[in-house]
Amino acid sequence: MRARHKPWAEDYLKEHANIVVLDPIRYKGKWSALFGNDRPIHVEIGAGKGQFITGMAKQHPEINFIAIEVVKSIIVSAVDKVVEEQPGNVRLINFDAKDLREIFADEEVSRIYLNFSDPWPKTKHAKRRLTYPSFLAQYQQVLKTDGALIFKTDNQGLFEYSLISFSEFGMVLDELSLDLHQLDDPLNVMTEYEFKFSEKGQRIYRVAAHFIEK
Amino acid sequence: MRARHKPWAEDYLKEHANIVVLDPIRYKGKWSALFGNDRPIHVEIGAGKGQFITGMAKQHPEINFIAIEVVKSIIVSAVDKVVEEQPGNVRLINFDAKDLREIFADEEVSRIYLNFSDPWPKTKHAKRRLTYPSFLAQYQQVLKTDGALIFKTDNQGLFEYSLISFSEFGMVLDELSLDLHQLDDPLNVMTEYEFKFSEKGQRIYRVAAHFIEK
Ligand SMILES: C[S@@+](CC[C@H](N)C(=O)[O-])C[C@H]1O[C@@H](n2cnc3c(N)ncnc32)[C@H](O)[C@@H]1O
Ligand SMILES: C[S@@+](CC[C@H](N)C(=O)[O-])C[C@H]1O[C@@H](n2cnc3c(N)ncnc32)[C@H](O)[C@@H]1O
Repeated sequence: MRARHKPWAEDYLKEHANIVVLDPIRYKGKWSALFGNDRPIHVEIGAGKGQFITGMAKQHPEINFIAIEVVKSIIVSAVDKVVEEQPGNVRLINFDAKDLREIFADEEVSRIYLNFSDPWPKTKHAKRRLTYPSFLAQYQQVLKTDGALIFKTDNQGLFEYSLISFSEFGMVLDELSLDLHQLDDPLNVMTEYEFKFSEKGQRIYRVAAHFIEK
Repeated sequence: MRARHKPWAEDYLKEHANIVVLDPIRYKGKWSALFGNDRPIHVEIGAGKGQFITGMAKQHPEINFIAIEVVKSIIVSAVDKVVEEQPGNVRLINFDAKDLREIFADEEVSRIYLNFSDPWPKTKHAKRRLTYPSFLAQYQQVLKTDGALIFKTDNQGLFEYSLISFSEFGMVLDELSLDLHQLDDPLNVMTEYEFKFSEKGQRIYRVAAHFIEK
């Protein structure tokens, strides 16, 4: 996702410290305390402008949502969305998911969402894909035993790669759709990219999977 | 696949006993002896009119091919194709794959191909799908440890079901294409159904997978 550089973004995040957790490492193992309840924690990685997390938070008041986005000039739009829609159960983190274990304790998370992750189509960039084994190892560690990884994308190559990657990692597939919008699920919460690509008539792929052992 | 009833089919198969193995149970554990060499054995299940197996046999003289088809009035067309093309490395069996273990010993087979298997879309018919766990258990048993199951179909629902079924069975996915013909692989041998559906512009899905333990 490209975004104009926004020199004011850093200050903007600081001004919204009720929504943006500025020192996420401090909350490792203590996210429930931050939310003030023991509800399950669902994390989105690469949350972009926050449409998904905001929609999910409104649909699921029984869940605590944390959205992680590495680019400041993008996450500010997610801040705006949360300010506008006022879901109490969302926090945003400006962070690189490659260090996920620094902000979550083992089994602290019930579900991880990856939505329209950057495809990094060149093989030499495979390590940057959010479904590369080094990322899966982190997800496995922070997810509860009965936790799930849920991945949506329009990108055929990334989806093919990811199914193989999950399988080689020993994950088990629970749900699969090769044309999500065909299902017409009224509960499906669309992301920005999902809206854009499905408008163009592109298929959306979706998979839910779990890890089997540590 | 529908075919007109052909009352002469049974006799026709008997007349071609050099190609059609009439008593396959007798060859359990002895297929190499039948072929007269120790080349790997690749089996197609639900071979239809034999276009795939004949094409593969010509492309791969280093492999012994066995095509299984349960419907007599369909397998006669495969007989005609083999008679015409004369590959020496193909045998046909008129048999129901549900009893696969009656005709192959443990680890006798190196590869199993499923092409455009009947989708049986109703849940109550799931047991008839050639990727249902009871079938997978048979494939696992007759396949060598480093053997593979390779499945092509145009049917989205069956493909989704099968990936989940493989995964739940503990299989590992090795190769995946969600649009096979996009790859333009000159070595891809088309089946009758593949030709028909891809002509209509439908996508062809393909997966290769292996079993991990018995
Ligand atoms: C293609 S966008 C998709 C945005 C949104 N999920 C959607 O579906 O509309 C991918 C986003 O992931 C973010 N991202 C990529 N790698 C990341 C990482 N390692 N940690 C956190 N965010 C990441 C990018 O900055 C970008 O905003
Ligand atoms: C839809 S057709 C596809 C034929 C061919 N593989 C192709 O791709 O053109 C499926 C074939 O599988 C055969 N078949 C279905 N179940 C079978 C079984 N249990 N054992 C052997 N053949 C079976 C059917 O009779 C039919 O000819």
